[in-house]
Amino acid sequence: MRIGILGTGNVARAVATGLSRAGHDVVLGSRTPDERKDLDHTVVGLAEAASHGDLLVNATPGAGSVPLLHRIGADALAGKVLLDIAIGFREDWTLDHPVASLGELIQEEFPRTHVVKSLCTMDSTAMTAPEALEGASNVFLSGEGPAAKAAVGRLLVDLGWPESSHLDLGGIRTARGQEHYALLFIAIATSTGDFGFNIKVVRPRT
Amino acid sequence: MRIGILGTGNVARAVATGLSRAGHDVVLGSRTPDERKDLDHTVVGLAEAASHGDLLVNATPGAGSVPLLHRIGADALAGKVLLDIAIGFREDWTLDHPVASLGELIQEEFPRTHVVKSLCTMDSTAMTAPEALEGASNVFLSGEGPAAKAAVGRLLVDLGWPESSHLDLGGIRTARGQEHYALLFIAIATSTGDFGFNIKVVRPRT
Repeated sequence: MRIGILGTGNVARAVATGLSRAGHDVVLGSRTPDERKDLDHTVVGLAEAASHGDLLVNATPGAGSVPLLHRIGADALAGKVLLDIAIGFREDWTLDHPVASLGELIQEEFPRTHVVKSLCTMDSTAMTAPEALEGASNVFLSGEGPAAKAAVGRLLVDLGWPESSHLDLGGIRTARGQEHYALLFIAIATSTGDFGFNIKVVRPRT
Repeated sequence: MRIGILGTGNVARAVATGLSRAGHDVVLGSRTPDERKDLDHTVVGLAEAASHGDLLVNATPGAGSVPLLHRIGADALAGKVLLDIAIGFREDWTLDHPVASLGELIQEEFPRTHVVKSLCTMDSTAMTAPEALEGASNVFLSGEGPAAKAAVGRLLVDLGWPESSHLDLGGIRTARGQEHYALLFIAIATSTGDFGFNIKVVRPRT
């Protein structure tokens, strides 16, 4: 699959490595591609990355994602699946979208794009190496449209997440659950000194 | 231990049952105790419950907790440990404290009370019967002062949570992590149709 990853940070590079390894044709999109020639991935401009990808990944800093997507333009993003991994933080580490979520906001601003929120409940190492954790854990999906979620689900499998680990939360409104969890994630990571963990949903015994 | 539980809802009653079973002397506090004579617990007025308890539990609806605690009064709450389980929701199920948390707010409003946030990341059945889940899971603690957290930690053990399941997140500021997780909790519960689950932190293999 042709995949355009918007961003060149830790998350963008980890996902690019994982998806390239699985055989996908991946490029990273940057506002300043000429300055990112040091990376082990093909780095192109944002518009080019958007046009390259049948599926796009938003791995840009969340507080700036919406203006950046507007620079690419609604027409360029129309009809595409956008896997949104970003979370918007303010400088004091409170959420930039304290009531709803960035995922919902992007879907609202780009109604012709199929936004699926996923992978934002863990750090970039766990994201692409769930098997390195000491047991099974979960990855969540939020979005409208079963086809878009199925496409993202296949990428999750390619990154090492077996189907049994996927938990479909429902529509894009549930992205707020994934994003708000970031505050618990940070508290756990800070107190344990370990950002590489994930969570597992433990059900009642039947 | 003498414990005063503020509230008479599901959470208050579940915690009262669990702590009575463990041998504690528990009363529930209600604004209208005469109307709650149907319960299997001793129900008294709020002020009386506060004065009864060496340790207090806030199990009132979170959006109304602060005014209710003010009715009891800062002097009556001074010097006591307050285990705060409440989360404030608005009518549309968004958080009533979308930036910080109720736990922080209570600590700010009642500086002479030792607020410890815990148990708010699960429903009332899991709270008092963690062994009914299909595997180990975690309970979080946020608060100032090791003595207050140790007292709450002992109550958690009495409710069935082994020490190994406790995760101390740090100061009361981390209560926002526990409270904001409520949105993910609701999304998981709604999508699976099961509110009785909990989460486990899964660490990287060492």
